Amino acid sequence: MAKQIRLNAFDMNCVVHQSPGLWRHPRDRSRDYKSLRPWIELAQTLERGLFDGLFLADVLGVYDVFGDTADAALIHATQVPVNDPLLLVPAMAAATENLGFGVTVTLSYEPPFPFARRMSTLDHLTDGRIGWNIVTGYLNSAAKGLGETGQRGHDDRYAVAEDYMQVVYKLWEGSWENDAVRADPASGVFTDPTRVHRIRHDGPHYKLDAIHLCEPSPQRTPVLYQAGTSPAGRGFAGRHAECVFMSGPSKQVVAPRVAAIRKAAVEAGRAASDILVFTLMTVIVAETDEAAEALMADYCRYADPVGALTLMSGWTGVDFSRLDPDQVVEHVDNEAGRSALENITRADPNRRWTVREVAEHVCIGGIGPLIVGSPRTVADALEAWIDDTDVDGFNLAFAVRPETFEAVVDLLVPELQKRGRYKQAYAPGPLREKLFGRPRLAETHPAREVARFRA
Amino acid sequence: MAKQIRLNAFDMNCVVHQSPGLWRHPRDRSRDYKSLRPWIELAQTLERGLFDGLFLADVLGVYDVFGDTADAALIHATQVPVNDPLLLVPAMAAATENLGFGVTVTLSYEPPFPFARRMSTLDHLTDGRIGWNIVTGYLNSAAKGLGETGQRGHDDRYAVAEDYMQVVYKLWEGSWENDAVRADPASGVFTDPTRVHRIRHDGPHYKLDAIHLCEPSPQRTPVLYQAGTSPAGRGFAGRHAECVFMSGPSKQVVAPRVAAIRKAAVEAGRAASDILVFTLMTVIVAETDEAAEALMADYCRYADPVGALTLMSGWTGVDFSRLDPDQVVEHVDNEAGRSALENITRADPNRRWTVREVAEHVCIGGIGPLIVGSPRTVADALEAWIDDTDVDGFNLAFAVRPETFEAVVDLLVPELQKRGRYKQAYAPGPLREKLFGRPRLAETHPAREVARFRA
Repeated sequence: MAKQIRLNAFDMNCVVHQSPGLWRHPRDRSRDYKSLRPWIELAQTLERGLFDGLFLADVLGVYDVFGDTADAALIHATQVPVNDPLLLVPAMAAATENLGFGVTVTLSYEPPFPFARRMSTLDHLTDGRIGWNIVTGYLNSAAKGLGETGQRGHDDRYAVAEDYMQVVYKLWEGSWENDAVRADPASGVFTDPTRVHRIRHDGPHYKLDAIHLCEPSPQRTPVLYQAGTSPAGRGFAGRHAECVFMSGPSKQVVAPRVAAIRKAAVEAGRAASDILVFTLMTVIVAETDEAAEALMADYCRYADPVGALTLMSGWTGVDFSRLDPDQVVEHVDNEAGRSALENITRADPNRRWTVREVAEHVCIGGIGPLIVGSPRTVADALEAWIDDTDVDGFNLAFAVRPETFEAVVDLLVPELQKRGRYKQAYAPGPLREKLFGRPRLAETHPAREVARFRA
Repeated sequence: MAKQIRLNAFDMNCVVHQSPGLWRHPRDRSRDYKSLRPWIELAQTLERGLFDGLFLADVLGVYDVFGDTADAALIHATQVPVNDPLLLVPAMAAATENLGFGVTVTLSYEPPFPFARRMSTLDHLTDGRIGWNIVTGYLNSAAKGLGETGQRGHDDRYAVAEDYMQVVYKLWEGSWENDAVRADPASGVFTDPTRVHRIRHDGPHYKLDAIHLCEPSPQRTPVLYQAGTSPAGRGFAGRHAECVFMSGPSKQVVAPRVAAIRKAAVEAGRAASDILVFTLMTVIVAETDEAAEALMADYCRYADPVGALTLMSGWTGVDFSRLDPDQVVEHVDNEAGRSALENITRADPNRRWTVREVAEHVCIGGIGPLIVGSPRTVADALEAWIDDTDVDGFNLAFAVRPETFEAVVDLLVPELQKRGRYKQAYAPGPLREKLFGRPRLAETHPAREVARFRA
């Protein structure tokens, strides 16, 4: 049977996520990000479309590489102002039953003990529908917000992350046994203290001596998302991630990256299928190809190339304000920058990209590729991506909120269902059970290792 | 005109908050604390009763003084397991329009930069209905969860808190001017960067160099709650607090405490009326005095004196497991402990209290006083409290959740309304406007001082 296609919605608690300028579109509701109602309605739309999850990005700083100031980011609202993503989840969870929530939390700026409680709380309140996108942070401006002079080196951040993961795994998996809570009115025993274990951790970066404050939640450890594609990031994902977000301009570029991630999982003693890979994609779908092209042309009228370069400067570390718009983009000196840029330029190795062209590309859906067309055209393309790259699904960015997602739900999902490539109903149970057929982490996951002496 | 009586509900994201053992009552739903639905229904009940707010307590540790172990706390579920309180708010906010939310967050364990964003986010999402109960932390077990060997000294914690307040005030009040956000599609300007100011803070405990990440929320600074009654705590409250929670066994004990708080506000250059004082109270109300007494007797059948002493040990630092139940409680060596104990024993200076009697008292509503009776009896008593002590209202604990609050809403509130002592409808606007007639902090509040150079 052909592989099923999974869909995630990619969004952020701010005005401009991946499509700079589109907040000015008359039908766009991005400016309402501060209110609960549009988020609740979005969650209901996604659930109607049987999306696996809503993935919420986050940054704890501003994009201030462009022109060496935050001015452009503020003017163009590129991911600033930005509100906390976690606090959207409870309201959306109360209005849905099956949609998962993958939320980005930068671990460098949140002590593991209260963070572990926060995620356990969300896992309880959502009946096991919470996921965590593990981020170590990439903006210097964020580090300064925390009183540091700049962020740590890239590999050092992953060493801190490893220690952090050990702490939260021990709290989630190793503190409370499954049957610790009796809640027995007759005996008066709520919790059996012999089944609750104190966690003592004395790592290179974190120390802890405490029991976890929460009783076991449906999934215990939230579904673990990760997006690192550097060698250190890939190693981390291979060990820890259950869902990996990636981005690439073409099937040719993405396929080996998927293989590399699956190889990293196998090298870490896990199964290649223990990781679901979602690749960034923007879909502009309408009844016909012509209508979709017209819609795309309409969207492009609101594109904001300076906003796009503000984002690109933040992602790459290159100040694009110093470059001539007609200058050909050659290469970038740092690894993250090269990776972000190549996500655009490597679509066609023979093509030369000017700064202006890069900016225009980023305006609709960021650095991810774009598919424009009728449900049939889009479904053909997505099927080919799945079949040729071994990705499991797509992390769908939007151009106009919530219109882009509504079109996918109303037009694309039925077409995929007709082809037998999309589920007809949600699987039961917590998010991990829907994704992997089991509510708890696989036995081969390293979190089970630290917990084994307990459970 | 006689002073209006204000009501807050006092609750916590756990099984046993202030009434140990009552989770075993057949009608109690405390075991459902992990689900959103009961919280949403509670919020709607409170809003039906025109409560000013739901106040959520919190601890980030366990009560492990009793027997020098956490065993008793676990067995009796006394404030453990305990989930994060902030994450309840968005779901309750989506289902209500006027109820305020006062949430406890221990500042020692959360960096000010992400915390400021969290509260701004909640202020946006609730349309200005968020309050923050400023707590510096009192459990050694919580400090150990953060990798420290024990908590700081009491006064030192307040010095840290002062520095922390300066940082968050600057972020909330001094970073974004009121008209910074243009959101103007025609010009393409979302935010005017000349109206967003970088905050540079170099204090004894916190450093920061960043703009606030959120645009101005309805209240900017959340309504500030505080509960300290020590000299250092009172000074802190006098400077910062807008709502003060206190607890005392009798009007005679509470009245001078209220006066002392108002005096501290005046000494800090504020008005005595800039602080609303809510005193802890538990109300067991039924159609008649006899029915209320019967209800109380029914509740007492489920009281759990060991759970009560577990809480008392945590609050006082005295290990009550070492004392004989019939031993008379003499005095406690430390200030916090003396204060907690005297909240019970000073009701009648001539009475001697045994350990057993203290435990029994704490079982219904913690260390606060108790009023049992018909709506008329309870209203008489509450009116006398307001008139004799100058408190502004009551922080109502519950015996059985949500039954205790439902009875207050259905029986007591109409009686108070009939007497002209309770509002007939909510005032419009954000929480601070409902409480004080203005959405933003008073001009005399110290937060306005740090912001003045900006706004």
